[in-house]
Amino acid sequence: MLVKVTVKYDGSHYFGWQTQNGKRKFKTIAAVVNKAVSTINKRSTEVVASGRTDRGVHALGQVFHFENDYLIPTVRLKNALNNALPDDIEVIDIIEVKDDFHARFSAKSKEYHYYLNTGEYDLFKKDYITQYNKHLDYELMLEASKLLIGTHDFTSFNATSELEKSNQIRTITKLNIIKKADLFIFEIEGNSFLRHMVRMLVGMLVYIGAQKYDIEDLKKLLNNEESLLAPFNIEPNGLYLYKVNY
Amino acid sequence: MLVKVTVKYDGSHYFGWQTQNGKRKFKTIAAVVNKAVSTINKRSTEVVASGRTDRGVHALGQVFHFENDYLIPTVRLKNALNNALPDDIEVIDIIEVKDDFHARFSAKSKEYHYYLNTGEYDLFKKDYITQYNKHLDYELMLEASKLLIGTHDFTSFNATSELEKSNQIRTITKLNIIKKADLFIFEIEGNSFLRHMVRMLVGMLVYIGAQKYDIEDLKKLLNNEESLLAPFNIEPNGLYLYKVNY
Repeated sequence: MLVKVTVKYDGSHYFGWQTQNGKRKFKTIAAVVNKAVSTINKRSTEVVASGRTDRGVHALGQVFHFENDYLIPTVRLKNALNNALPDDIEVIDIIEVKDDFHARFSAKSKEYHYYLNTGEYDLFKKDYITQYNKHLDYELMLEASKLLIGTHDFTSFNATSELEKSNQIRTITKLNIIKKADLFIFEIEGNSFLRHMVRMLVGMLVYIGAQKYDIEDLKKLLNNEESLLAPFNIEPNGLYLYKVNY
Repeated sequence: MLVKVTVKYDGSHYFGWQTQNGKRKFKTIAAVVNKAVSTINKRSTEVVASGRTDRGVHALGQVFHFENDYLIPTVRLKNALNNALPDDIEVIDIIEVKDDFHARFSAKSKEYHYYLNTGEYDLFKKDYITQYNKHLDYELMLEASKLLIGTHDFTSFNATSELEKSNQIRTITKLNIIKKADLFIFEIEGNSFLRHMVRMLVGMLVYIGAQKYDIEDLKKLLNNEESLLAPFNIEPNGLYLYKVNY
């Protein structure tokens, strides 16, 4: 039977969930998870995730499924998997699902959070919060964020080198920016995301807050007027895959 | 002229300040700092630290001195050094000192802090806070900590394999244990410390809190009655060299 597994991970020491071209020499989260799951099943087993996360990106609620052989009772599976995983990857939930469940194709929406600090640099948080040493105008960013909510052609916010043939229209259902002193937290939910889309959206909002770009520039990118790519693919370390909704 | 430099560092990715036997293949904080200082002086320059920190141990206020050639004015030296250093080592203060200053021999006392969490495990803090999954009796630890303050023979709290010939009498001037919900912070100040002494002291306090050992066991170790070594050399990741006093 299939099981749906929710995991948290610290992506700092991995080359992402999976490398783009499957290069074997880089340590990926998928490779480590597959190894743990194969130990449980006592046979080579591969998991299917809701999607990739890039190098340095973290997860609070990544989801994957796999065919569980039930060598270990489900009630003990979570502990067994955690024992087989390194301490920067942690299973937080396992449930049984029907055979038509698919971690990627059944996902209705995803939510990402991004942490950005504009205050004093804290080197102990460098892998977890992105540092930006400029004042950001919160009101301008809020105004810009409202433009992004809804359904748009996000071609300008897609880092794929060869443009995808499929359409690049996506829907953003939530975009909150929370300010706590010098820390900004971006909460972005949408039906699905293009490659680097979240980072390019946050990067654009940050550039608007820093007054390097303005609302009109954002409108041009959103209307895909000049076939430009969004100017700032902000660092991955502040990005967390927060939740996958099914 | 000599300059006294105060640095903060995240020790997670280093084999300590300096390896015990100077093996060149391991990346040490001293090697990285020497390289940065040599860049500034445009000649091979070695710094002298207040003391070593072990692999995985962090610093909020490590101190070193070096002979500064003044190719860069002192006011710009801090920025220049930070530019030459990786982002997990940060110079927080530089001052000029007299020629008889010595980072190690002029130090009057040192203060270490140790962070221990007994609550829910947070994988994003694994390199910075030690996890201990047992209830700790705070009152018992406070009682034990009072016994440690003052001047004692700490032979039982010395991890050096060959016992040092010099005396192992040390003075602890402060030992606070602060409890914030499930987080314990140990603040330990003393004139100087033996190898692994702080970790063995914290380890013993933790074992007393967990009721694996009792106050009488601590007294035996302190009186060096049975030539025993303290039983628990607690992990380095929760340890911070907080301050060196001159």
